[in-house]
Amino acid sequence: MTRSFDIAVIGATGSVGETLVQLLEERELPVATLHVLASGESAGRSLTFKGKNLRVRTAEGFDFSTVQLVFFAVAETTSRLYIEQAQAAGCAIIDLSAAFPAALAPRVVPEVNPEVIKRLAPPYLLTSPSASAVAVSLVLAAICEHVQLQRVTVTACMAVSSRGREGVSELARQSAELLNARPLEPRLFDQQIAFNLLPQVDTPDDEGHGVLEKRLSSELKELLGDAQLKVSASCIQAPVFFGDSLSVSLQTTQAVDVAAVKTALQSSAVLEYVEAGDYPTVVGDAVGQDCVYVGRVRGGLDDPAELNLWIASDNVRKGAALNAVQLAELLIKHYL
Amino acid sequence: MTRSFDIAVIGATGSVGETLVQLLEERELPVATLHVLASGESAGRSLTFKGKNLRVRTAEGFDFSTVQLVFFAVAETTSRLYIEQAQAAGCAIIDLSAAFPAALAPRVVPEVNPEVIKRLAPPYLLTSPSASAVAVSLVLAAICEHVQLQRVTVTACMAVSSRGREGVSELARQSAELLNARPLEPRLFDQQIAFNLLPQVDTPDDEGHGVLEKRLSSELKELLGDAQLKVSASCIQAPVFFGDSLSVSLQTTQAVDVAAVKTALQSSAVLEYVEAGDYPTVVGDAVGQDCVYVGRVRGGLDDPAELNLWIASDNVRKGAALNAVQLAELLIKHYL
Repeated sequence: MTRSFDIAVIGATGSVGETLVQLLEERELPVATLHVLASGESAGRSLTFKGKNLRVRTAEGFDFSTVQLVFFAVAETTSRLYIEQAQAAGCAIIDLSAAFPAALAPRVVPEVNPEVIKRLAPPYLLTSPSASAVAVSLVLAAICEHVQLQRVTVTACMAVSSRGREGVSELARQSAELLNARPLEPRLFDQQIAFNLLPQVDTPDDEGHGVLEKRLSSELKELLGDAQLKVSASCIQAPVFFGDSLSVSLQTTQAVDVAAVKTALQSSAVLEYVEAGDYPTVVGDAVGQDCVYVGRVRGGLDDPAELNLWIASDNVRKGAALNAVQLAELLIKHYL
Repeated sequence: MTRSFDIAVIGATGSVGETLVQLLEERELPVATLHVLASGESAGRSLTFKGKNLRVRTAEGFDFSTVQLVFFAVAETTSRLYIEQAQAAGCAIIDLSAAFPAALAPRVVPEVNPEVIKRLAPPYLLTSPSASAVAVSLVLAAICEHVQLQRVTVTACMAVSSRGREGVSELARQSAELLNARPLEPRLFDQQIAFNLLPQVDTPDDEGHGVLEKRLSSELKELLGDAQLKVSASCIQAPVFFGDSLSVSLQTTQAVDVAAVKTALQSSAVLEYVEAGDYPTVVGDAVGQDCVYVGRVRGGLDDPAELNLWIASDNVRKGAALNAVQLAELLIKHYL
């Protein structure tokens, strides 16, 4: 194949967008022209791509008819402004913000439910799921032959990088102030995040469920193709710079063969299984990696139909930018 | 009552022991003589109690017949050395190390299962449960009239103070090194704890279950008097100095009346219920407090027989020292 594509990345100066541009180069996607777009503030900066400096331009007024593929790595409200323009121009779209419902923009993880794309017609609009849903679905897909899932209970401890670069600098600032015994006024988060855990990462609805909690639950059902699956999701903001850590408890219809599950995890190409005794962490293992790390795999203490495990994954790279680029690879290979 | 008691605290220079001595004074327990004992290293130091300096002596060779009540706030191995001596001398014992099995040394939380003591004969040997079990059992006991529990799934994010003063200084040291961009060698923990989460807090057994995970599970069943209750426990070491944060998901036999649960939590004297929208944290709320904080109370996203909540509690004070002192108050009032 010698075809190449004109591609735009909206939100190219954010942490996900920048990683996405890096991955387009690293993974040698057939890019003819790359347009790096961002909000007004970042316009004028430049990004390096294949040894050249690309000038960041504002997304406003961009002519989407000049590209065939667009990544949206911006907040939902910004995606909404431009996705319809890009669709009208016939672009294939990969949206990381979940701006459209699943019926219009299915959630896809290439290693989990790639067959979904077959049912679509161009112009393609795919959603790259939340980082936690990407990580958990990869693990559950790897073991689905050995466990008939009934319920998934997840506590997702999320890094401050889920709030972008501002989250990272706010944790660093707060930690330094506190270690120097200076008074602290939280800025980005509602409360002190340094040396603390916040049990809420966004604004909950009237029933008390957070946006990301609902997203994680519905995305897992969609990715695993199991509308009956019960999912309990709790999202926690942790004082960690990069990487999502997920404590997962599964209930199954039958007793779990833990040894078979471990073998399945070991033989997966996208997972790194860590043996009992040792354990994976985001800092020690997952950050910067393309694999999702799984460890602490164990049955139930009092229930043979239970399985518990721990997942560590790079929320920016594997959970967001890489999944989006893999979706582009899939579209390019089979559909565009 | 004008009776007073000679009391010994073994492990008085540890963080729990020191808080325990403070609470004996604050809560005006009828102390005649207080003996503060510790390992050889700390002997010779002094502690303040009711305006006097008490010299810390070594536990070795202590004559237990000179006291009527002994607190063990030391590691299990040390407790085992001395508990039998103290029992032989007729002392009432409150052990924070769980050195003896439940059949010999029942786990008691005064607000949850005080009636257990009635079935015992002197000399009394009570175990103050793990800090997480104290916190979770207080919350579950408060709502037990409104939920018929089937299963409790807990992810317990534990502060480094669960490893004593060494844990606290190691987190401070690692955080400072990293913020100053100096290379890091973890000492106390297996891996970097600063800006990271470790999914294991002790040595797991052959099935992969950690000591504290098994303790939390068995203690919850015992405290709630429900041997059939299923408990899934995951203990995580968090980069937090003080306070345990617990993400809890409950399954019940019938649809949960969430409003009734909230009212029950609000009317409990030992809990502080935080309304939806806001949320409690260990740093902002729980540390230094005698109450256990509960928030993020919400039903299931897809299961009416589910309840989710978040608990923040001071692991050293409420979870350990205060519970032990409250047990002493109970023994003194009714049994000694």
